[in-house]
Amino acid sequence: MTTRIVLGSASAARAAILERAGIPFTQVPADIDEAALVTEISKPRVQAQALATAKAHAVADRLMTEQRVTEATYILAADSVFELEGQPFGKPHRPQIARERWRNQRGKTGTLHTGHCVIAMLAGQSQRVLQETVSATVTFANVSDAVIDDYVATGEPLGVAGGFTLEGYGATMVSAVNGDPNAVLGLSLRAVRELLERLDVRLTQLWDTHE
Amino acid sequence: MTTRIVLGSASAARAAILERAGIPFTQVPADIDEAALVTEISKPRVQAQALATAKAHAVADRLMTEQRVTEATYILAADSVFELEGQPFGKPHRPQIARERWRNQRGKTGTLHTGHCVIAMLAGQSQRVLQETVSATVTFANVSDAVIDDYVATGEPLGVAGGFTLEGYGATMVSAVNGDPNAVLGLSLRAVRELLERLDVRLTQLWDTHE
Repeated sequence: MTTRIVLGSASAARAAILERAGIPFTQVPADIDEAALVTEISKPRVQAQALATAKAHAVADRLMTEQRVTEATYILAADSVFELEGQPFGKPHRPQIARERWRNQRGKTGTLHTGHCVIAMLAGQSQRVLQETVSATVTFANVSDAVIDDYVATGEPLGVAGGFTLEGYGATMVSAVNGDPNAVLGLSLRAVRELLERLDVRLTQLWDTHE
Repeated sequence: MTTRIVLGSASAARAAILERAGIPFTQVPADIDEAALVTEISKPRVQAQALATAKAHAVADRLMTEQRVTEATYILAADSVFELEGQPFGKPHRPQIARERWRNQRGKTGTLHTGHCVIAMLAGQSQRVLQETVSATVTFANVSDAVIDDYVATGEPLGVAGGFTLEGYGATMVSAVNGDPNAVLGLSLRAVRELLERLDVRLTQLWDTHE
């Protein structure tokens, strides 16, 4: 029987991590009311995990309803929340917000929390649900106002949690990470590999070097 | 006067970091006798910096000889050496070597040292030389023999210092970094930006959002 990995997320960054790692997958976006869920949970670390788990369940429900599950399927969902000085931060969306946040966060250290959830679907039913939250600290370089303006002008910070990323333009703005850098990018493949191992699936066996 | 960045390295990983960060550059490989230089230096951190500086000078000499320097040119070179238990490790090259190293390094923490050197060439002459060594620890996941075999079969570890990378297949094999993840990939853009700032060049002003 073949093994099917479903990424329950619309995130291009997460899809890119799986693609670069040579993992075959299909992408099914989860349709959940993030705002409603987040307002009930105050701790950023718990928020990230709750969002990831809600997304995985939403995708599992959708696949079951559509009766699309005929082979062993593992739904993988993840969500990230950035925490600075005890507060959760999502995407800044607007240039002015991104600029203000960067003027506050330069030179400081925050924590990026990424919740991971894997749901194993066998014989068309959800059989097991596994979770892991991976947190990593991120230390920002003490950049000048001019560099912040240059970065905001690229548009990159507007669409990412905390207004930064480790690759792309953001590589110039971050001085250190303590933890799994792929979790900071949106998906810890170390965590995914270990969650699947607990379900007796060897992720690395899906690499096409085995075919 | 325009500012020209020359990457004095044949490394595809370093070129990719600059490309993803939107920095315009030309690539000029440095032709140095790495083995001769390395055998005289025992400390991995010092090795990495010496190799980076030698490469930058080799490229500066070549550009001067060829009289190709007519605008303000900044030569950037970098080199990485992985240190585990006090020993330096380069590329494993052969599958059997990669397998043996991984069986030893799984679950352990080593340090990736990346030396950076920037040479400013103005009016056709080397004017200033700046250096910075960026070190980051890397903790490997405690993977099984089967996972190591899967990873070696991809071929990826054979051509990278320490037999791992943070992106691609290697993302499944690393549990944490403490330091700049881009330095681990081969080039700290935070360091490059700061070295150029000391030469009154704002790297982020080279982004084409300014054009």
